[in-house]
Amino acid sequence: MKKLAIIGTGWISSSFVEAVQQTNSFEVVSVYSRTLQKAEEFAKKHQIPSWTNQWGEFLLENNWDVVYIGSPNHTHGDYSKQLLEHQKNIIVEKPSFLSVEEWDEVHQLATEKNLFVIEAIRHYYEPAFQEIRKIIAPRMNEVKGAVLSYAKYSSKYDAFLRGEIANSFSLSSGGGALMDLGVYPIYNAISWFGMPEKAHYQARKLQNQADGQGIVSLEYPTFDVTIFVGKVLNVCLPQEIYFGKETLQINDCQEIKEVKTLYMSEVVETKEYELRRNPLEWEAIGFVKILERTPESLKQYEQSKKISRNVLEVIEALRNSAGITFN
Amino acid sequence: MKKLAIIGTGWISSSFVEAVQQTNSFEVVSVYSRTLQKAEEFAKKHQIPSWTNQWGEFLLENNWDVVYIGSPNHTHGDYSKQLLEHQKNIIVEKPSFLSVEEWDEVHQLATEKNLFVIEAIRHYYEPAFQEIRKIIAPRMNEVKGAVLSYAKYSSKYDAFLRGEIANSFSLSSGGGALMDLGVYPIYNAISWFGMPEKAHYQARKLQNQADGQGIVSLEYPTFDVTIFVGKVLNVCLPQEIYFGKETLQINDCQEIKEVKTLYMSEVVETKEYELRRNPLEWEAIGFVKILERTPESLKQYEQSKKISRNVLEVIEALRNSAGITFN
Repeated sequence: MKKLAIIGTGWISSSFVEAVQQTNSFEVVSVYSRTLQKAEEFAKKHQIPSWTNQWGEFLLENNWDVVYIGSPNHTHGDYSKQLLEHQKNIIVEKPSFLSVEEWDEVHQLATEKNLFVIEAIRHYYEPAFQEIRKIIAPRMNEVKGAVLSYAKYSSKYDAFLRGEIANSFSLSSGGGALMDLGVYPIYNAISWFGMPEKAHYQARKLQNQADGQGIVSLEYPTFDVTIFVGKVLNVCLPQEIYFGKETLQINDCQEIKEVKTLYMSEVVETKEYELRRNPLEWEAIGFVKILERTPESLKQYEQSKKISRNVLEVIEALRNSAGITFN
Repeated sequence: MKKLAIIGTGWISSSFVEAVQQTNSFEVVSVYSRTLQKAEEFAKKHQIPSWTNQWGEFLLENNWDVVYIGSPNHTHGDYSKQLLEHQKNIIVEKPSFLSVEEWDEVHQLATEKNLFVIEAIRHYYEPAFQEIRKIIAPRMNEVKGAVLSYAKYSSKYDAFLRGEIANSFSLSSGGGALMDLGVYPIYNAISWFGMPEKAHYQARKLQNQADGQGIVSLEYPTFDVTIFVGKVLNVCLPQEIYFGKETLQINDCQEIKEVKTLYMSEVVETKEYELRRNPLEWEAIGFVKILERTPESLKQYEQSKKISRNVLEVIEALRNSAGITFN
């Protein structure tokens, strides 16, 4: 079992460590936080033997060569470059980097060093996600459109309204609805339909100029994909993909547990998929496979890298169309 | 019971006559079609005592003063003006007229003659439709958006693909997805949220340039309403209206039988509404009330007129934004 270190002690790092331990994917051996107390608490909670708030020392640790970065989005780029220089493979929480430029810099370095940079986008590793891709691929010329969404009222929005701005609501941390939740359904769109010809984001901005919600329009040659994203409302629609008389209806854009085929609006088939108790388990298993460096896993890594970059390219175009800049 | 004449012998006229007879709303006494055989068949099927294909004679009939126009959209304007000149009240199938200009001409004449021109937009008369309006009105400042839709694969689309172009697919008849089905959810939007500041239609056009499907975007000061329309695909989404933590989920934009209130994505209340076997029954009952000329019914008529014109104004703006013209 490969040894893994953790950067960041928020709830996402915690969930990831639990998923790793539940699936016996990695042995978690070290945790870094800028705050020593947080590092120690996190380590003790998850039975991790080593913790530190000394970045220089952390970089020189030599009992692990894979690191998970779960710190705020705007920190991913710098951390990644330094870690690659120290021969570490990287698993970086979504959205991996703030810009395509940063993505390219990091990946160029990784290629030079023969190291991995894997985006931790959990739903991409769900069995249903890839199966839906295979259902759509041979029928692309029949597609008449799709409606996707990820819009949930954030547990941190009430605090935001009182003036406490969490990272996921802060543009200086690379937050906002598009970056925080939109990245999921955009992954679906790019994985399932490829790159759009045009991308537009009708954003509704909060007082701090971060996008609290918005509508993503992806224009393909013969159809449109509409994506609702938001952190200030609850969109409860299923995901739908249209093929003329047939409609594919999916319970959600992630944690996919049910895919219905409707013919002329009547359900004719229902497929069920296994959900893990912790939705990060599938990716933990997936990362182990990638790091095995088999011909098949390397092929899948290249594929996921391509999609990761394409998603970021689309997100950047969307941000530009809505005038969203990270200050 | 007022006496009613019918223009047009298609399925919509047939359904309307059945609704009228089931609800004892009017006595149907005459039917006009350009084709005598169709008029006769229709009359016999529905036990209507008189039929004709002679327009001049039909206009001079004096045993009825209310007429239902169920002929193709592009014929509504001319028929209406001639009928008003002959002192007939008009019930005209949706979408009432091709342009705001035509709407204004017809209604100006109706006002001069002290006659009614009522748009037969059936779902507007459903009890649930007006109740939802009343739920939203006091909470307008909380609205975070809405997703509506009416997109059903047409029974006439397969014939269209073989080259037989039905009126509802023909721009010269005032057809297309927006005019034929889009008018319903646009009625919902205008009735429930008022007039938008901007309206845009992302249309996907068929070979004959009619819009087979499209996405309507209505921009309000603080939220957006997205409407999916189409005649070449089946959108099976419910309708949703967003109020932050709360979501109102409605089974459909018309034939509304269930309205769910969700709090943080969990259903907390479900209201059921009566559906009529024939969905045109509610409007038949509604038209009788309007024609009673009580102070209350006149007020409701003025309200429905205002919405009818606003809907047409929005539809015209949408058509312009998509470059759709009736040739």
